[in-house]
Amino acid sequence: MIVVMKQDAQMEEVEKVEERLVEMGFSPHRIQGTGRVVIGAVGEQKVVFPTGLEVLAGVEKVVPITAPYKLVSRQSKEASSVVRVGELKIGGKELVFMAGPCAVENEDQLLTIARSVRATGAQVLRGGAFKPRSSPYSFQGLELQGLQMLKKARQETGLKIVTEVITPQEVDLVAGYTDIIQVGARNMQNFALLREVGRSGMPVLLKRGLAATLEEWLMAAEYILAENNFQLILCERGIRTFETSTRSTLDISAIPQVQELSHLPVIADPCHSSGSWRLAAPLSRASVAAGVDGLLIEIHHKPDEALCDGPQSLTPENFENLMAAVAPIAAAVGRSMPGNAESRITEDL
Amino acid sequence: MIVVMKQDAQMEEVEKVEERLVEMGFSPHRIQGTGRVVIGAVGEQKVVFPTGLEVLAGVEKVVPITAPYKLVSRQSKEASSVVRVGELKIGGKELVFMAGPCAVENEDQLLTIARSVRATGAQVLRGGAFKPRSSPYSFQGLELQGLQMLKKARQETGLKIVTEVITPQEVDLVAGYTDIIQVGARNMQNFALLREVGRSGMPVLLKRGLAATLEEWLMAAEYILAENNFQLILCERGIRTFETSTRSTLDISAIPQVQELSHLPVIADPCHSSGSWRLAAPLSRASVAAGVDGLLIEIHHKPDEALCDGPQSLTPENFENLMAAVAPIAAAVGRSMPGNAESRITEDL
Amino acid sequence: MIVVMKQDAQMEEVEKVEERLVEMGFSPHRIQGTGRVVIGAVGEQKVVFPTGLEVLAGVEKVVPITAPYKLVSRQSKEASSVVRVGELKIGGKELVFMAGPCAVENEDQLLTIARSVRATGAQVLRGGAFKPRSSPYSFQGLELQGLQMLKKARQETGLKIVTEVITPQEVDLVAGYTDIIQVGARNMQNFALLREVGRSGMPVLLKRGLAATLEEWLMAAEYILAENNFQLILCERGIRTFETSTRSTLDISAIPQVQELSHLPVIADPCHSSGSWRLAAPLSRASVAAGVDGLLIEIHHKPDEALCDGPQSLTPENFENLMAAVAPIAAAVGRSMPGNAESRITEDL
Amino acid sequence: MIVVMKQDAQMEEVEKVEERLVEMGFSPHRIQGTGRVVIGAVGEQKVVFPTGLEVLAGVEKVVPITAPYKLVSRQSKEASSVVRVGELKIGGKELVFMAGPCAVENEDQLLTIARSVRATGAQVLRGGAFKPRSSPYSFQGLELQGLQMLKKARQETGLKIVTEVITPQEVDLVAGYTDIIQVGARNMQNFALLREVGRSGMPVLLKRGLAATLEEWLMAAEYILAENNFQLILCERGIRTFETSTRSTLDISAIPQVQELSHLPVIADPCHSSGSWRLAAPLSRASVAAGVDGLLIEIHHKPDEALCDGPQSLTPENFENLMAAVAPIAAAVGRSMPGNAESRITEDL
Repeated sequence: MIVVMKQDAQMEEVEKVEERLVEMGFSPHRIQGTGRVVIGAVGEQKVVFPTGLEVLAGVEKVVPITAPYKLVSRQSKEASSVVRVGELKIGGKELVFMAGPCAVENEDQLLTIARSVRATGAQVLRGGAFKPRSSPYSFQGLELQGLQMLKKARQETGLKIVTEVITPQEVDLVAGYTDIIQVGARNMQNFALLREVGRSGMPVLLKRGLAATLEEWLMAAEYILAENNFQLILCERGIRTFETSTRSTLDISAIPQVQELSHLPVIADPCHSSGSWRLAAPLSRASVAAGVDGLLIEIHHKPDEALCDGPQSLTPENFENLMAAVAPIAAAVGRSMPGNAESRITEDL
Repeated sequence: MIVVMKQDAQMEEVEKVEERLVEMGFSPHRIQGTGRVVIGAVGEQKVVFPTGLEVLAGVEKVVPITAPYKLVSRQSKEASSVVRVGELKIGGKELVFMAGPCAVENEDQLLTIARSVRATGAQVLRGGAFKPRSSPYSFQGLELQGLQMLKKARQETGLKIVTEVITPQEVDLVAGYTDIIQVGARNMQNFALLREVGRSGMPVLLKRGLAATLEEWLMAAEYILAENNFQLILCERGIRTFETSTRSTLDISAIPQVQELSHLPVIADPCHSSGSWRLAAPLSRASVAAGVDGLLIEIHHKPDEALCDGPQSLTPENFENLMAAVAPIAAAVGRSMPGNAESRITEDL
Repeated sequence: MIVVMKQDAQMEEVEKVEERLVEMGFSPHRIQGTGRVVIGAVGEQKVVFPTGLEVLAGVEKVVPITAPYKLVSRQSKEASSVVRVGELKIGGKELVFMAGPCAVENEDQLLTIARSVRATGAQVLRGGAFKPRSSPYSFQGLELQGLQMLKKARQETGLKIVTEVITPQEVDLVAGYTDIIQVGARNMQNFALLREVGRSGMPVLLKRGLAATLEEWLMAAEYILAENNFQLILCERGIRTFETSTRSTLDISAIPQVQELSHLPVIADPCHSSGSWRLAAPLSRASVAAGVDGLLIEIHHKPDEALCDGPQSLTPENFENLMAAVAPIAAAVGRSMPGNAESRITEDL
Repeated sequence: MIVVMKQDAQMEEVEKVEERLVEMGFSPHRIQGTGRVVIGAVGEQKVVFPTGLEVLAGVEKVVPITAPYKLVSRQSKEASSVVRVGELKIGGKELVFMAGPCAVENEDQLLTIARSVRATGAQVLRGGAFKPRSSPYSFQGLELQGLQMLKKARQETGLKIVTEVITPQEVDLVAGYTDIIQVGARNMQNFALLREVGRSGMPVLLKRGLAATLEEWLMAAEYILAENNFQLILCERGIRTFETSTRSTLDISAIPQVQELSHLPVIADPCHSSGSWRLAAPLSRASVAAGVDGLLIEIHHKPDEALCDGPQSLTPENFENLMAAVAPIAAAVGRSMPGNAESRITEDL
């Protein structure tokens, strides 16, 4: 790190900072500028910000040089990671589609949707059994019953399951019914939950928080890897900005940026980010073109009766169209579509 | 609510919407405009957005008319609420000062700070035993030991205690050691936690999330009141914006705005919001002038050695100066300073 | 529009609002809800917000129903517009590439870059002669000299020219040297400038402001169309958000969204939005996949010596690679690459 | 500045950067860290970012050490500046109130309001003759006629005048009718305008842009001081954030922060920032408590008939109440109210 002294810092203040750096295990290198002194701190010590140096007399600011995350960093692992869920690879050449309803509502609804998801060639069924909702008066999910329905849908269709967990103490329960554990955007900095899903050893899907910087997102991921669980998938789902014509702003730049900073696979959620099913197809195309490893899509066979997020849910038919629209983009960036899908689309043409 | 139809909506589409409104228990009122049809839905039914109507053919948008929160609303309770913590009133004429270290570090540190807090006349000691930290490598709090030290500080100084809880399963534990349970900004939409602190029956301090709208903040509060716990204090602590010269942007407008929308008491946290102890005094003055019921202040006797948030912590001496600076503002808006403080300050003059 | 009355509004207050609506030329339709009165205002009058009704006694809020823009709206013109610059069509099947240096620095620099732009098949040369710079100490552009160099580059290469104008009084001057006049992000609400470029009758490229909503952007466009100039191209160039790892956040959702709201062509500027040439290729691919009609790209043959924006400028070689990467995406969404480019790329394969 | 090299940078790359620094006139100081090399650049050369070094091979980032503004900086002038407008001092002990209508509508309106402004003791009359409006269909101001009415109001009341200028070529015209020239938020980076108001030698009121960082705001101010015009007043008027319950978010922290960075006086505009006259009083109290040198307030005798911004305009009576509410806050922070106001308020008590 670099300690920038104030223009009017006294020599004793500079020396005090250097002493403290030595106490902290660093080797200080003073640079006498024309207007002020700057001190470079050399050493391998892990620095946590703020460092305490900020409040020493004469210090103007402390500038970090290295990123605060380690295990998630591409500097610690150069090759892109592939997360394996049984035979399914996330982060490989084949794009991964996770599709399904916002919430599991009943067995009939789930199985109907699951079958249509299967038919398109998507590999993973999503569906919420525990639902974090802004209003205490909204439908909060079927909980255990919902998990059981997801298990049944898996048995019937062979799809992998991804579902959200909300509290640390439910991680074990959820882990018993799912293939991938989802941590939602609102829980991205629920650190107790992050540690617990880390300890579960299960593949985890970590959504970016609505107002999380890339660094905070990667630090949240670091919590999970620090529990020795490297089975982590990042999911960009839109950030909160001043623009209100869409529900949130899909941060498309975050995709290549995070791929440069980290070795972890990244997928995108065009439905939540936009809040509108009509934008799902162009945003899916854009995300694949930008380099995502997969997409998370909400679908519902009767969006106007959905217990949550109807306006952003695609009908099975719209989802088929979306996959058909994504297929040539995938090809253009050297990715393949899931098995059936590709053959199906080929047959259609 | 109001359903706005598209300009080119067909008559059957309008009728379909009206039928659905009747099914939902509403009485539809059609207004034939010059360009389009608008349908008013009259009824007492609770509406949860999105409503499902958004995806019906011919519908452009659905506009809510009433706020989604009930119990926290000033429409449901006109008089401002006063939260009582023993003999202490929050939301009364006397301003409430909650001060102490970011984290409980050891008994010596806590008692030293607690005594200085007591000496200024502040009524509540704050201090974190469970710390949510962005980095897994940061100090995470002393947990149970920290709680025990807080209890001891309470016994010695007579100060009330406020401390944060992070997971639902620790609510009971924390409740046994504190007077007010804090829900931090990152957990504002940790709904399982909100429900659990609601059920505890304890006074709760609910911080606004970094990217939470006023409506989302009040909906989070609604979760707690919906558990029949009305002992709730709101805390504005800064929102995330594009401006980076301060850690976050204290939303001073939120204070009078939320007081108009809700009957709940509101305090401000000038240290976290700015990230700088130098801004604590002007922001405290501004918050009191804007009408807050109290302030949450970080203090540390050795900020450069603090295990967290040193740069935004005041020394006990600076905190005394801050209270002296706030006192005439309090008087100017018809509020009183806490007992000792007032007499002390009077003596000083 | 809809006037929502307060819950406790008096009958006389409701009547007063209705009288005012009649004075304004509207026909009021009262809906007596269970909790409050809502008044629909029917009529063709243009409403400008705020309307004055907001401050009448008993009024809670006034909700607009129709968008404030007319000429730019797809409701006023269903077919997508094509802007013609000589034989070049912007908004047609062929993607348009506008490439060149941030600033015209000297004849040699401009001609070198222009030739390489021409070689790739791009149709338009960009280059700033008048530069809006955050610092008064930065290079401010060559002004008239720069315009003359652009003209020369046009003569030599046959490329169309796009260059920025900064003040109303320079519009005529700039119009004499360019094919498309650019209005920069910082001037998006420089209304005198908008009117003047509108009156020029020249094709205009209107960048979105850093903090402009889609509605404000379209209202700025409306200023130009209101001068009877329909030759307008919109350019998404990133919005300001809390995220600082990129210079700004390319609002990819804005592309399909604005295409639904308006008939005007839209292009994207991946260099300014990200501030990094390394992100230019993935963001270009994403923009084309999302449906843009063209791209604006900064290139410089010696980025480390560029007088402005070097870090976000591509070398001619990188630009060639970018076009090669975009070509298959263009094909995937049914767009064609510019003449030479396509043949060149085909030959390469 | 500090140049941070990549972890895997080659020695030749480091040397290349050092050579370039020498060419730029700096003396490079290499620090060999455990993971990477960092180079400190010592010298008095003015650095404009980006520097070009960013694109050299092996460079990760370039970190600025000194602020890019000079003349506005408190480092260049330690004492707070006082702007003089005739006998009126802005930045002295006495708070300055600038009040009046959003737009000059007609002589009767302006004089009625001006008299009531005078009666409260406010020192400056505000009123727009040239209005920047989001919509081309909104009232755009009376222009020259409006300026003449402002002059007349000055003659009758003795109030100083502040009014906005929108284009560089109108600066001379406006300067002939006003005492202070206002540059609005939308024009904060209209650099040609900044230069022209700088050259006018008139006192200038510079509003912060809706999405401008403190640094950009101070750089805009630097444009004016660089023309040798030091008569500059900054005005915080709210920034754009995700929160929509207020029109914008008054950045109260910016007030003490900018006072630390710069010697220029700062006022606040609570009406524009909140968009609601009801919030004007608490935000005025907060701004004065935070340390502003004055307030800019919109008033209108008939807000429901105002041609612009009625909802955020106070009636003369409300403005009197606001001043009465501000007076004790002013006293609490050691500021005085304007002459008449103080005596009037004293008499009232």
